[in-house]
Parts: sequence; structure tokens; C-alpha cells
Amino acid sequence: MSRVAVTYRVSVRPSDVAAVAEGIALEQSVELPASALHDAEIQANIAGRVAGIRQRGEELFDVDVELAAATMGGDVAQTINMLFGNSSLHAHVELVDVRFPEDLLAALTGPRFGARGFRDVVGAHDRPLTCAALKPQGMSVESLAQLCETLARAGIDVVKDDHGLADQAYSPFLPRVQACQRAVDRAFAATGHRAIYAPSVVGAPRRVAEQIHIARDAGTHALLLAPSLLGLPAFAELVHNAVEVPVIAHPSFGGATRIAHPLLIGTLYRALGADAVIFPHASGRFAPPASQCRELAVRARAPLGKLLPALPVPAGGLQLDSLGEVITFYGRDVMLLVGGSLLADPSHVGDRAARFVAAVREASLARDGARA
Amino acid sequence: MSRVAVTYRVSVRPSDVAAVAEGIALEQSVELPASALHDAEIQANIAGRVAGIRQRGEELFDVDVELAAATMGGDVAQTINMLFGNSSLHAHVELVDVRFPEDLLAALTGPRFGARGFRDVVGAHDRPLTCAALKPQGMSVESLAQLCETLARAGIDVVKDDHGLADQAYSPFLPRVQACQRAVDRAFAATGHRAIYAPSVVGAPRRVAEQIHIARDAGTHALLLAPSLLGLPAFAELVHNAVEVPVIAHPSFGGATRIAHPLLIGTLYRALGADAVIFPHASGRFAPPASQCRELAVRARAPLGKLLPALPVPAGGLQLDSLGEVITFYGRDVMLLVGGSLLADPSHVGDRAARFVAAVREASLARDGARA
Repeated sequence: MSRVAVTYRVSVRPSDVAAVAEGIALEQSVELPASALHDAEIQANIAGRVAGIRQRGEELFDVDVELAAATMGGDVAQTINMLFGNSSLHAHVELVDVRFPEDLLAALTGPRFGARGFRDVVGAHDRPLTCAALKPQGMSVESLAQLCETLARAGIDVVKDDHGLADQAYSPFLPRVQACQRAVDRAFAATGHRAIYAPSVVGAPRRVAEQIHIARDAGTHALLLAPSLLGLPAFAELVHNAVEVPVIAHPSFGGATRIAHPLLIGTLYRALGADAVIFPHASGRFAPPASQCRELAVRARAPLGKLLPALPVPAGGLQLDSLGEVITFYGRDVMLLVGGSLLADPSHVGDRAARFVAAVREASLARDGARA
Repeated sequence: MSRVAVTYRVSVRPSDVAAVAEGIALEQSVELPASALHDAEIQANIAGRVAGIRQRGEELFDVDVELAAATMGGDVAQTINMLFGNSSLHAHVELVDVRFPEDLLAALTGPRFGARGFRDVVGAHDRPLTCAALKPQGMSVESLAQLCETLARAGIDVVKDDHGLADQAYSPFLPRVQACQRAVDRAFAATGHRAIYAPSVVGAPRRVAEQIHIARDAGTHALLLAPSLLGLPAFAELVHNAVEVPVIAHPSFGGATRIAHPLLIGTLYRALGADAVIFPHASGRFAPPASQCRELAVRARAPLGKLLPALPVPAGGLQLDSLGEVITFYGRDVMLLVGGSLLADPSHVGDRAARFVAAVREASLARDGARA
């Protein structure tokens, strides 16, 4: 019987770890104590089992549990239910890794476009892509569209709505998306640079469905969606049934889990269909450990069944004067998102965006030079 | 302009708390540093503002932030985005309270049935209700239906699927739900006690929609749904657009947040439409602090705009011999969920369930006696 290998990181005293590990294996499968399991078939094929315990610190352990794939019923929601349903209620347990067996992996569809979905549109295949955000919310549709055009004319590859932009009265979704797409179209006509505008699609399911229609009618080339906010099962179904353009996943509400970010954002968002994944970079205002950022980027791009790689998008306070280091850190198959740093002085947004674009090209050339 | 009052609990050094508080207020609204905010209108009406900071421990503070209701666009997903989108990525920040202004509160619909939705069906208005679970998964449809009938004949009020039951090959949703509803119908014909069977509805959106149809056709009187697993926006929309019976909310995946459980389960699940909310009781295997359980139950039932109260359902390892204490703790407007403790010995499930039913009636009578 096929098993999913799951690793939980557990804060517990060494004397308790064996019982805690056994407890997780049962909680995430049959939800009964072993003493109440009377059916040999269920014990053998349905109950979770502990496959290993590795000490990582004085009171910190990695517990490997094998869960029966049959319990997951071929469904995203039920898979999450089995991976981390009740155990999420235990504050001392974190979900840090999931390894799907071949049959489940084959059922995952993953990104439909990957990095090429963005690269083909903007015509850039050999350098990091650049991304900027439209903000702050509260601006009018006209002001947002003007900012969008400024950024596109400066050569930014992907101009995305701030994830806080939804369908508010001061910049309703329909006119905003139409105006911003027209703005990148004007910039293309003027400069020959085809920028992608990615609207922020956020709402309860019916509203999201309407917004996806509006964005398609407006001709946008990508969408920004927050999988953890919409719900992971709803996100996966939307991407594969309703969206015809590349999807950028935003981590909003995704930190409100005890699922390690490399797994959640690098593996799971990708497995559910994200073509690009935004995450906080080590040097910014969220300051996760650099090792975590590296692992996340590795997971987004590493071979995983037949899944396309997803494009890592480090963000969260990148500064214009240290982009070289960031590119060295992630390599060139990356999209750099610089938000607030471009907008500090409203009269110089275009200049700063152009500096961003130039800095990425220069850093990229410098790397080529160093290699040659 | 209408504001939502939000409280974040922050682990931070006293010297840093003012800057961290200001950072949260900006992160959860305009997502720009104050220095990059040049529009007076946006500063005044859109940007979040710090309303107070209260020290709770040496390096622990409650930060009150007022967020503009206008940013939430009248939508569940966007409201969560603004309450805890990016700040969820800060491990030192927990969301502990939200107070909606009158206009937003009036837009929340909350429970459609509340406790009466269950009490009217089973005909019990003056005592705690009893609830038991069908498990372990891996059992056949026939075995589950037999267990369901045993529990209903013993007088259990609500027999629910274990939340791990989905649409697995060994007990597919359609035949399981039909068989279990027939089981409670047979018990009703035999004993005159009308038990409620609540199937576990779990899946990606299309599958959930199908399951809701199947459950309605089968004549079930309640449903079990996990709001955090389905996604909070999807849950709210489902309840109000597709479900015609009372909803029991299961906390699966809901612990995987840094949202305080009294707020998430007691207030938010209720506000989004749950008629009853399951949560771990202090004495069980999840062992949250008793004060947290009490606050959760208070929030589920306390006046909140025009919202009906939701029925608290303590669970997670309740033992038959201490039910009196639990009833004293929560009062009688409660539903007690006893799961594994009934199933320890397969040949005595009916006896133990009858003991559960009798214990609740006795404890309830004892309370009446003490009052008289």
C-alpha cells in the first residue's frame, strides 16, 4: 500500500518523544489510541506509523511518519487534513516535510507555465526578471494606472498589484484592471518593452470567479493569487479550471501556519499550480534565515515528479543597492520584487525603476563575465 | 471613517515595541514606510494607526491597531488579508482580537440556526447535548452504519463522521452517508429518539458541492465542515449559499495559525456561519489552558451584533467519568463530544454510549437540584 512520508518537527523532552511520535501517527490517521484499534487490516494499512525519530536539539526532534495514501482520497483538502489537521492544534508540532509516493506525485499537476510563462511574454530568457508593485492602496484608478505605465516604461518586467488591492471603493477591480492593462499596452507601444500586469485577485469564491473573468477580458498576462488566503484546495481548483495565464502566488496568511515555509511556499504552492512564488528574502523586513530562503528556492525549482519548476520571487524589502548579492544568492532563474524602495520619492519613481532594471542587467552581465 | 479595532500580541523587547507596532499598522494597510506615504488622504483614512500598547510580560505586549474598514472591501478573504496577511509572516506576531464596527457587524450573518438547530431536531432544550464520532477510518460503510445505529439507539443526540472520513475508497461518501442516515432513521423508528447524523464534508470546492447535494438528498440534519481546511472565505460562502441544515465547525488545520483559538474558533468561525464549534477541552489530549477554553465558549455564545450564538462543543479526549465537571465548567448550553472513549471495547459501545447519555442527564438534574 502506498505511503506518504511526512516529517514533523517536535519540541518535546527526550523521554516523551516516542509517545508523542506514536500519538501523531495515530492522530493523523485513525484518531484512536492503539488500544482501541481492533481491526488488523486497519492497523496494517490505514493507521499511520512512525518510521524514524532524529534528535535535532536538546528538546527538538524530527519525527518521520508514514501515512497511508489511501486515507487522502485523491483530494487536496483531504490530503491537508491528513497531513496536518488535528496535529496543527498541538503547538509543539511543526510540519516540515512531505514526500509523496510516485502515484500521488503523478496526480499532481503543478505549474502549467513555470518561469517560461513570464519569460516568453517579456522576451527575456537569460537574466533575472524584475517585478514591482502598485501601491499604496487608497490611490485612485487613474493614479495606479499612471504608476503602472511609469514602471512599464522604465523596463520593469512584471508590474503587480499590491496584494492589499482587492475590490475597494477607491479602486474597484474592473476599472483598475482595465486601466492598468491599457497602461502596459501604451508602454509597449511607446518602448517596445512588453511588461506583464498582474492584478491581485482576492475574495470569496464567487467574487474571485468574477475577477478572473474580468482580468481575462482585459487581456492581462498573469494573475496574483494568495493560496493560503483563498484556501489551498480552492486555489488549486481555480488555477487548473479557471485560469489561463501564469499565476504568481503571494504568501499572505501563509505565515499563519506552523508549516515550514520551504515546504509550504516552495513545494506545496508549486505542487498546487503556482508558476512563481513570492517569499520574504533574508535581508528585508521579515528577515527569515538565509538558509531557509535558499531551501525554499531550491524546492521551487528542484525536480519533483514531472512538475515544472516554479520561479522564486524574493521580496519583502529588497534594496536597489544590493541586488547583485541577491542574484548571486539565487542565481539568474529568479524574479526580483522591489516594492517600497522604488516609491520613496514620487517624483523619481521612473528613474529608480530604470536603475532597478539596469542593475539587474549589469549584475547579470557581470556574472557572465566572471564565468567567461 | 469606520475602523476595525485589532489586537496583536507581540513578543519583542520593550525598546522595540513602538516601532514594531507602527510597522504592523503600515504592513496591514498601505504596506509602505511612513516616509513613502505622501498623500494626506491616504495617511488619514487608509493607513492603519496604532491606538494603544499594553505590556503583558517582560517582552510581551498587546498592540491595538485600528484598520480602515474601507480597505476590507466587504469581503471575507480581503478582511483576513487586512487582519493578518503579511503580519502572519512575522513569527513574533499573533492575532488575538478583532472588534468590528457596527456597520461591518451588521453585514456578518453568522449562524443561521445556532443551538436550536440541533435542539429542535432531537427535542432537548434544557440539558447539554451529546455527540459521538464514527471511527476509525478504514471501516466499511456497513460497519460505520452499524456503529451509527448503535450510538443512535443508545440515545446519543448527534452522531458525526470522524473528520478524517472523506471520500475514500473504503467508505465512499455517497453510500456511507445514505447508510448512516438510514441507520439513525431505523433507531428513531425503534426508540423514538431522533438522532442527528452529521457527515464530514471535505474536499476541493467541486467535490464539496457534490457532497452537500448528496447529504441533502439523503436527508441528513447537519453537516460537519472544517473552515480552516476549506479556506475561511469558501466556508462562509458555502454555508450561506449551499447548506440548508445546521453546520458543525471542526478545527482541523485551524491550529496551524497564530490566531488565538478563542478568536478563531469562538468568534470568527461563528461570524462566518458555524452553528456549533468543536474545540479541544482542557482535560483532553490537546490540553489547552482552561482559561482559553472558557474564553472560547464565552465568545461563541456572547452577544455580538445580531448574530445568533453558536453552540460550544468541547472535545479531544473527554472521559465518561468526569462529565459532571465539564458541564459545571461550560454550563448546559453545550454539546459534549466523546469520541474514542466510547469505542475502547467494540463489544460494549452501546453500553458506554448509554452511560454517556445517562451521565449527562444526571449531571443536568443534579445542577437543577443544586439550584432549587
